[in-house]
Amino acid sequence: MGENDDSEIIEHHVDEAMEKKTSQRSQTRSFLESVTSSERDGHSSTQSSHRLLAYSDALISIIATVMILPVAHTKIGEHEELKESFQLLLATKIAVYLMTFLIVTVAWAAHIRLFQVIERIDDFLALLNLACMMLITFLPYTFTLMATFPENVLGILLFCACVMVIGLIQAAIVIYGFSRPFLLNEQIQISQDQAYFKHHILKVIMRVPIMCLFASIFSFIFFQLSYVILAIVIFLPYIAQSLKWCKAKAIGQPLEDEPDAVLFYTYHPSEPLSKERVEAFSDGVYAIVATLLILDICEDNVPDPITVQEKFGGSLVAALRDYGPEFLAYFGSFATVGLLWFVHHSLFLHVTRASRLMGLFNTFSLAFVGGLPLAYELTTEFRHDPRNAAEAVQASCVILFFAGIFQLAIWVAALFDERQTLHPLVRYGGRDHAFMLAKLALYPCVALGTYFLTCVLSEFSASIFHLMQLAVPVAFLLLRLLVGLSLVLLRALLTALRKTPEGAAAAAEGGGLMEEDEEARVPYSDVVS
Amino acid sequence: MGENDDSEIIEHHVDEAMEKKTSQRSQTRSFLESVTSSERDGHSSTQSSHRLLAYSDALISIIATVMILPVAHTKIGEHEELKESFQLLLATKIAVYLMTFLIVTVAWAAHIRLFQVIERIDDFLALLNLACMMLITFLPYTFTLMATFPENVLGILLFCACVMVIGLIQAAIVIYGFSRPFLLNEQIQISQDQAYFKHHILKVIMRVPIMCLFASIFSFIFFQLSYVILAIVIFLPYIAQSLKWCKAKAIGQPLEDEPDAVLFYTYHPSEPLSKERVEAFSDGVYAIVATLLILDICEDNVPDPITVQEKFGGSLVAALRDYGPEFLAYFGSFATVGLLWFVHHSLFLHVTRASRLMGLFNTFSLAFVGGLPLAYELTTEFRHDPRNAAEAVQASCVILFFAGIFQLAIWVAALFDERQTLHPLVRYGGRDHAFMLAKLALYPCVALGTYFLTCVLSEFSASIFHLMQLAVPVAFLLLRLLVGLSLVLLRALLTALRKTPEGAAAAAEGGGLMEEDEEARVPYSDVVS
Repeated sequence: MGENDDSEIIEHHVDEAMEKKTSQRSQTRSFLESVTSSERDGHSSTQSSHRLLAYSDALISIIATVMILPVAHTKIGEHEELKESFQLLLATKIAVYLMTFLIVTVAWAAHIRLFQVIERIDDFLALLNLACMMLITFLPYTFTLMATFPENVLGILLFCACVMVIGLIQAAIVIYGFSRPFLLNEQIQISQDQAYFKHHILKVIMRVPIMCLFASIFSFIFFQLSYVILAIVIFLPYIAQSLKWCKAKAIGQPLEDEPDAVLFYTYHPSEPLSKERVEAFSDGVYAIVATLLILDICEDNVPDPITVQEKFGGSLVAALRDYGPEFLAYFGSFATVGLLWFVHHSLFLHVTRASRLMGLFNTFSLAFVGGLPLAYELTTEFRHDPRNAAEAVQASCVILFFAGIFQLAIWVAALFDERQTLHPLVRYGGRDHAFMLAKLALYPCVALGTYFLTCVLSEFSASIFHLMQLAVPVAFLLLRLLVGLSLVLLRALLTALRKTPEGAAAAAEGGGLMEEDEEARVPYSDVVS
Repeated sequence: MGENDDSEIIEHHVDEAMEKKTSQRSQTRSFLESVTSSERDGHSSTQSSHRLLAYSDALISIIATVMILPVAHTKIGEHEELKESFQLLLATKIAVYLMTFLIVTVAWAAHIRLFQVIERIDDFLALLNLACMMLITFLPYTFTLMATFPENVLGILLFCACVMVIGLIQAAIVIYGFSRPFLLNEQIQISQDQAYFKHHILKVIMRVPIMCLFASIFSFIFFQLSYVILAIVIFLPYIAQSLKWCKAKAIGQPLEDEPDAVLFYTYHPSEPLSKERVEAFSDGVYAIVATLLILDICEDNVPDPITVQEKFGGSLVAALRDYGPEFLAYFGSFATVGLLWFVHHSLFLHVTRASRLMGLFNTFSLAFVGGLPLAYELTTEFRHDPRNAAEAVQASCVILFFAGIFQLAIWVAALFDERQTLHPLVRYGGRDHAFMLAKLALYPCVALGTYFLTCVLSEFSASIFHLMQLAVPVAFLLLRLLVGLSLVLLRALLTALRKTPEGAAAAAEGGGLMEEDEEARVPYSDVVS
């Protein structure tokens, strides 16, 4: 199977795709949707990478969230104080969870970038990618070792070994890809400078494994240093580029004529990230997190037949009543995670291009979402103990607030560069701008409100929390109505004010709250258009 | 927001989509890929359902596989015989797992069908769907109750309650969809008979909840009967239609002018199933199963610092050596599941349309894939105990064999109707036909070979098994080469035989093995074309 044979296949494929495109038009939409690109492209030894990437996203999202399990399974004794247990037992595990989440998403970002260069795959690349995935899924274990035995070099050595092998596999993928140019991104295929691109990309990819090699050598001499090296390797490029970018933005000076970010492997915060893959990754995390509690419930919360006979006189209902809080926690966390997914979904419907900065905020939001089931379990576990209950509810509110506020941050980051990233309808002053803002602001506002209410009325914290859980889905259902109503009211108010010029000036000054301010401008543009 | 307003939005959207389509042509492929349909459609209150369905698929695939966890966590004592433990401890759990998998996939098939009628969604439908998902994810728990307390009606009542509520929500989705026709499948939108379709679909959907209502009433009188009713409700339509279809196929009589299956909610085995969703569901299952063991490893296999100090003299490496088998099992099962995914991926690249029968075989294959991690764990756990080791290896081989053979069955089912379901290249006599067959046959053949080898050489079963694990990835890498070589050899043989007419006749008779037979015909068509 020489190269000649392969390029023939490609030509054949292209002709076929063209043919299909013209014939498709006449067919129904439902059929059109089922004709995925993988199907159009899949008739030769090279394939569209679509499904490979979807599978990789699924694997990586599971691995990113897996370290929440040890956190969630930390059992707290009945008579201990919640606060102390938190500090003593959970701190390390939470740190491991967050570290894993961060590092795995960095690996995921590198994977996105690699497969933005290699756009088509064949069997060999698919198998190489699977080997790469196997090593990525092993990373969380090395972190657990590092956290449990911080003085032992084994954890860091294992981590470095994994990263080095991942780097070598990625380099092999790049070299293989460039040896069969029809697998590459079209822009690179067209360009005359393929050798230059290849060397540049290999240089960027190999930087990390080489630094890891140094880190693993240093770990025998002075192991604290290797932690520092690793931190530098992983985060420095991002931080340095972000600072440079922020400085340029702050001064207002235009960035030096940016080369195409995809091809040059930069770390610009405005670098485009495949929107499809951000969605797939987020879907995976939301799905795992939503079902985390049912995994435990199915395994642990089935009473033993003998216990039921002896303790509850054979009444299964009475036995299950003991598990009531777990079920409540499950439905509560499923609903919350589902609604957060719904907000994310609504936002990304209107995003036309995701940038690296938006991806970062998305990662932070997802990391907090992962903590929700745990918080909800605590909240329902302590419902009979007012003091701990208030603290558990407040912890839930804090997590919920951050999960929501980082979603809002994605939106704000998108607004900064709205011509590139957002659809006109939701841009500043657009028709759906206020509605989107309301959707994104709902959870942070509710979480903040609940937090302060429980501070004041700490005795009723559990009831307040349950009320909030019931109210939020209803609020989402009525949101469009509410936003519409408040816009109509504002419009009426503005028309009334405009009749007296002094009133209009007062209104312009009076819009102190950012939210009201934004909403107030929407009717303006509505009236104008 | 009246209907008038909404239809305006739709018109606007259609214009926009048209405009986009023409302008897209000129742009690069990488950009084209990032412009998903959700983006094109997402600029109004109605949205493409693509991502909602992807998220649902992720949730359902997690739930389908979750009941393998209790099976995998069943600990077997050191001195017990493996066979007995299997019979005593695992039988119920495995039954629950398989039942869950089957029922959840039935629910999933109903979900596919529903959203083949409702093709676009709005916020209200998205929220309704989330509520529906919440109930589906609760189904496994009701099965566990049924299996643990078969004499108690609570399990069956809970199950019926869930199914009834799911049915009501689906009915609500249908009614809402038909009240806003622009959400519907285009064929229904165009048709004059919307009211008829609506009633027909509602009738099919409500059949199940109503039967469940009867089952729950009967459960108080004579609860065995309700199990029978449930089995009838769930499987009868499929079985009846399949028998009818098989009969028609066997007699060779053409089926009575089939109405469009999507619109009429039939249960024909040849009814099309959304290929995209079959892929998404399979990806989810493969991803969860591949990472099942690492979930456990991260949580359970980190040694306690105190134990390391006391038992191993502070040597972490020595402590980890104890966990060696778990790591080996992890890498082994990840590789096997990954390669099975790879085979599935290769097959579906060439599938143009998935039928219900293919979906059924896919479900069976996935159900066996779910058992693999457990089998691999057993295999490595018993490596020092030759007798149990041989049995564990054989169990693994049986599971692997069925996982592979049902993948092959998908392919055979597709070949039966190859004009509808397969791309020309892999059809009987096509260029890649032999290669695809070899890919699909590799795992069943290897599993069968290993099984018989361990029967003969039961003392070396563990070594044989590990050798197999190492050999299979290499075999996949070299498969194209091997198939190419054997085809060249066959061609040479055939040309040699053709020179003597008797030889040709002998060759035509001699091809007893199906595999050789199929491969032998490929060069024929190659030579002809």
